Amino acid sequence: MPFDDQLRADTAPLYTDLYQLTMLQAYWAEDMHANAVFDLFVRRLKHRNFLLACGLEQVLEFLESMTFSEEAIEYLREQGTFDEEFLAWLSDFSFTGDVYAVAEGTPVFPDEPLVEVVAPIGEAQLAETFLLNQLTFQTGAASKAARVVQAATADGTDRLVADFGMRRMHGTDASMKGARAMYIAGVDSTSNVAAGHAYGIPITGTMAHSYVEAHDAEMAAFRNFTRQYPDTVLLVDTYDTMTGIEKVIDLAREWGDDFQVRGVRLDSGDLAELAKQARARLDEEGLDDVMILASSSLDEHKITDLLEQGAPIDGFGVGTRMGTMADQPYLDSAYKLSGYDGAPRMKLAKDKSNLPGRKQVMRLFDDGEATQDVICIAEEAGDQDGTPLLMCVMKDGERTEAGRPRPLDDIRAEAARQVKALPERLRQLDLADPPYDVSISSALENRRDAVQANLRDRMNLPA
Amino acid sequence: MPFDDQLRADTAPLYTDLYQLTMLQAYWAEDMHANAVFDLFVRRLKHRNFLLACGLEQVLEFLESMTFSEEAIEYLREQGTFDEEFLAWLSDFSFTGDVYAVAEGTPVFPDEPLVEVVAPIGEAQLAETFLLNQLTFQTGAASKAARVVQAATADGTDRLVADFGMRRMHGTDASMKGARAMYIAGVDSTSNVAAGHAYGIPITGTMAHSYVEAHDAEMAAFRNFTRQYPDTVLLVDTYDTMTGIEKVIDLAREWGDDFQVRGVRLDSGDLAELAKQARARLDEEGLDDVMILASSSLDEHKITDLLEQGAPIDGFGVGTRMGTMADQPYLDSAYKLSGYDGAPRMKLAKDKSNLPGRKQVMRLFDDGEATQDVICIAEEAGDQDGTPLLMCVMKDGERTEAGRPRPLDDIRAEAARQVKALPERLRQLDLADPPYDVSISSALENRRDAVQANLRDRMNLPA
Repeated sequence: MPFDDQLRADTAPLYTDLYQLTMLQAYWAEDMHANAVFDLFVRRLKHRNFLLACGLEQVLEFLESMTFSEEAIEYLREQGTFDEEFLAWLSDFSFTGDVYAVAEGTPVFPDEPLVEVVAPIGEAQLAETFLLNQLTFQTGAASKAARVVQAATADGTDRLVADFGMRRMHGTDASMKGARAMYIAGVDSTSNVAAGHAYGIPITGTMAHSYVEAHDAEMAAFRNFTRQYPDTVLLVDTYDTMTGIEKVIDLAREWGDDFQVRGVRLDSGDLAELAKQARARLDEEGLDDVMILASSSLDEHKITDLLEQGAPIDGFGVGTRMGTMADQPYLDSAYKLSGYDGAPRMKLAKDKSNLPGRKQVMRLFDDGEATQDVICIAEEAGDQDGTPLLMCVMKDGERTEAGRPRPLDDIRAEAARQVKALPERLRQLDLADPPYDVSISSALENRRDAVQANLRDRMNLPA
Repeated sequence: MPFDDQLRADTAPLYTDLYQLTMLQAYWAEDMHANAVFDLFVRRLKHRNFLLACGLEQVLEFLESMTFSEEAIEYLREQGTFDEEFLAWLSDFSFTGDVYAVAEGTPVFPDEPLVEVVAPIGEAQLAETFLLNQLTFQTGAASKAARVVQAATADGTDRLVADFGMRRMHGTDASMKGARAMYIAGVDSTSNVAAGHAYGIPITGTMAHSYVEAHDAEMAAFRNFTRQYPDTVLLVDTYDTMTGIEKVIDLAREWGDDFQVRGVRLDSGDLAELAKQARARLDEEGLDDVMILASSSLDEHKITDLLEQGAPIDGFGVGTRMGTMADQPYLDSAYKLSGYDGAPRMKLAKDKSNLPGRKQVMRLFDDGEATQDVICIAEEAGDQDGTPLLMCVMKDGERTEAGRPRPLDDIRAEAARQVKALPERLRQLDLADPPYDVSISSALENRRDAVQANLRDRMNLPA
């Protein structure tokens, strides 16, 4: 049994919450096949000034593979909850709906739909869990990584950021999709070889303490490793950082003109102080080209702190705290019904309401800088100023031109361009004051109030 | 292209940090094939009194599938970093080592090895990333879930806990392995259908707000859903919780003796207050059998708070905060070289040192209650009191009898038994004072001091 067989394409639609399937059967039994509109959005941000949309490609792949194998149907049969006639219908099931989405790498804000699904209600419902699972995590990872990249390059210097998070990210999928998301957000490389293979992300790595320890002397380890990899990065803190630096200097003397070591990595202790001492010693010996890389529980705050102390660090290996989004390990995402059978719908429950009907987000620019987003009714978008963010990426279950897979480097470049177009205060780590201006068009506001009043009326609830 | 093809069994060993592969080649080039000992352990706990070991089964599956396909080798060739002779050697690679591990579902403490790998150093190194990735996450998820289950049943009442976390957990693998880990920790069911299929975990679910909203009236939704699923759980807060409860009462009158609705779910508002009001109204109408279930941003603290307020809640749907381990989204796990070629090794770097050599953990009991763990040298375990926790689960790359896959329900029952054997203060949410007693045998202490002194001496470092 291969270790990853639990999630296979032929049982992909089981990748859902049970209630999606029981509701699907109920809709089927009630002959409710009319189109619903569901929007996926984030209610509020914590510790973030913006989100970077990510995960759409995997969502579209999933929607294309939403068919039930014999094995999947047999498993459902065993539950005793599903009728034979429904299971027969399921064996011909596929996703036939339309999808509107913000392009990957686009900055988005609370209440703005990242995705709108327009499909027969049961289909749209069945897709919910996977869409939330992927978009919540990938958007969360990209948004966190954007901050780390921002911190590492805040003074305009192009310092490297490598994703070292694989070992403590939440399982295999997180480390794959996370590597992709963080690369989109501007991270330069990943240590995850499988992600390099799957997505073409540059892979990087140095050496581990265990390699040094396995040798009788640190010098022997450095000597042997550089013999194999002349332009490698040497890890210098296994025993004592500055002693390790002296070994690198000895090695440079041994190699003479052939010395090609690209850098040293500091992984413990007072990184700012050690980086300064290391830089000074390396420079004294004419080793100005040897970069100083740092790792060890880094995140955007620690990086900022190091750079504010004047630490001469050229690149950062950032692992667990970025990869697990440790300060905000989930987004407050939602996937809500906003229309059914041509009529707008919404939820009244306190703090959990949503905007009814199909929508569009218009982004307004002033001299190239984004100044305001307006969430409006989809049909009024043509009359609004600005650039529409939602595009039709799938029509009747088939990708449109806009939904075609895009080269990852294009997405990454576009993300960089769009983040740069945000107001300066949003690209700081502190919460922007004022936050970015997201307004609701008056037509949409009127619709929301009307739907709300109508619902309260129908349900005999106080206004 | 199936949506999950990025991690396939035939490219499994690429699922690693690049440096593991470059070190593997260096060891190969240096003819360093002697056995190394690596231990995987957690340095310290935050917000937890114990960990529940989880993930070993997936680790063994991975070690059994660590072979390089043509495709994997071709990808490595493209990197320009690997010699042809090494790539030829890789094409015959497999894991040939021994593995000692604590059984899944065993409570463990800081510094105690969850796994020790004894294998030719390059092999042991190559396994590091996957082992850390799976054991860190799964042990983290099980440990968090154990607290939630503890909170839900603190007064001895057997309340249900369902895993509703799939939608915001970090990707697909997290929601699969997480469902498994949380089930081992005592969670009763999962909403994740694929996890039910893969692992045989009971699957549960209710209905979504969207189902209610898609109907013209809440009553029509309740009526139709119970026609399909007579013993379902109805979600009552879409518009107003107590109005929803009255609808359930109306429905009970309609159905008369045939009324079988199993419960109602509250998902917003003041859950304690609403549960009391709902219980009172249901009881007034003779609906004592209708359970009250609650969901909405729950974790162990919120559950404790609800129960302390006397909320008559029979079960909890616990999602994001448990599934993302929101208060501690990663464990401070490490995989460290502790021996090579028969000699103990360790790292000196501050706060990151480890215990040298092969070890055993002995758990001492007093009248069935665990009182102390002693970490000792493996060879002295026979002379120590207590029950050894580490077992040989793989020998020469093959599973031993102790390493055979175990039925999930057996692991779960054993976990419950072992958690119950912990001192009462450890099964509280607050940090235990004093914490559990984990000692190091004097022989192991002596070895650590000797290795440390020897290293400092050899490296010319101050003591």
